[in-house]
Formats: sequence, C-alpha cells, structure tokens
Amino acid sequence: MDRVPVLKIGDILLVSIQIDLDDQTALQLQEDLSDRIVETGAHGVVIDISALEIVDSFIGRMLSTIAAVSRVLDAETVVVGMRPAVAITLVELGLSLNGVRTALNVDKALEILAEARHIHGVGLLAAREDDVD
Amino acid sequence: MDRVPVLKIGDILLVSIQIDLDDQTALQLQEDLSDRIVETGAHGVVIDISALEIVDSFIGRMLSTIAAVSRVLDAETVVVGMRPAVAITLVELGLSLNGVRTALNVDKALEILAEARHIHGVGLLAAREDDVD
Repeated sequence: MDRVPVLKIGDILLVSIQIDLDDQTALQLQEDLSDRIVETGAHGVVIDISALEIVDSFIGRMLSTIAAVSRVLDAETVVVGMRPAVAITLVELGLSLNGVRTALNVDKALEILAEARHIHGVGLLAAREDDVD
Repeated sequence: MDRVPVLKIGDILLVSIQIDLDDQTALQLQEDLSDRIVETGAHGVVIDISALEIVDSFIGRMLSTIAAVSRVLDAETVVVGMRPAVAITLVELGLSLNGVRTALNVDKALEILAEARHIHGVGLLAAREDDVD
C-alpha cells in the first residue's frame, strides 16, 4: 500500500502529498500524522500540496480533518504550495478549507508556526500570571 | 507529467521521493534541483527515500549524479530514510552510493549539513588567512 511519509524537522512535521489519495491512504496518513505528533511532541504540521493538480472536496475535507485533529493534539497545521489554479477551483467549487491556514512556501509556514507558538506561549504565560493573581 | 517537488527550508532543499521514477521524471528532478540550488544559493540537499521499497541501479545512479552535480554547485547531499531492507539489497547487489552521504532522518541530515558548512567555512577562513600570509 502506498503511504505518505511524515518527516520530522525540529519540532515540525512535514508531509508532501504527491500521490493520488484514496480513502485508505488518506486515513492512514491521518493516523500516521496523529501518532507522530504524540510521539514527537511536534507543535506544527506543514502539508505541501504543490504536486497536486486538483484539490477536490475529498482532499479538502481530509486537510480540514488533519488540521482539526492536530489542533486537539496542540499542533497547528499550515498547508503550503497551493497552485493558483487549485485556489481558483476551490473557490469556484465553494470549498473552504475550514480551520486550515495556508502559506506560499515552507519557509513562510515555519515563520507562521514559530509566531503562533510564541503568541501561544505568551498566552499561556499570561494565563499563568492570572492564576497567580 | 509527474514531478517531484523541491521544498526550500532555510538554506536547505528537501526532496521526498514517493513516486516511481522513470527516465524523464528523474532527469526533470535533477534539472529542477540544480536550478533551485543556483536560484536559492542552498548549501545542502536532503533526499528522503523512506517511501521507496526498492532502490535499484537506476535510482542509485540518479542519487550519485544528484550528489555530484550538487557538489559542483557547492551543496552537500544527504540521503535519509533508507529502509533496512533497501540497505541490505543495495549491498547484495553490490551497489555503492558513490559520493552520497546518508543519515537516518531529516534532523540528523540537517546536523550533518550544518557541521559540514561550519567545517567548510572554517576551511575557507583558513585558506583566506593563508592568502594573507
């Protein structure tokens, strides 16, 4: 069975989707990704879809689900590398990638994740200070 | 035509090979990679082959060629994610990945590249100091 590799880079997990995803592969990816988040304590997931020429409702839903599951596991998801044609099709189809952040490339996604982590950290700190008061 | 995406992460280029490479795709990948090295000034290339169940002489040669071309363009290549079975087959077939460094995972590859860069930098510095003398 085809399997999409999940690569760990520092405290980020990177997934580059290059194969046609059927139900089984998509489920497997969601499972692998959740397992790796828990295993590594990753705080961010970057999904590269630059190889995809089509993002249909199935893929769109999968991306939303991955983002939702990751969030519950305390990791933000950023989708990168969307082709302009894919963006146009998404809008034309009325598909919104619910809860999914996007960035033009991996570098920008890493910036977003670092920033989110920082703000999140500050938020936690503030919450703790509130507790102390 | 299928195309393997080349992802830029800082000053490293990352390629995750997940599809069966034919002559055309392999050539395209070599070309894309060389172009991106020159364009971005990347000093390292990480090639993930964790999705590959077989590395035959064709893939082996391609990896060696990529490493050789990258070196000429001042970028080191590290292959990561090789499966144990692939390593055994490589040795049994008598294939050596000439000039290709390997690491167990992306994090380790990034360490190797950072170190190589550091040593290289020191070497350059020493060479310059020699020039001054």
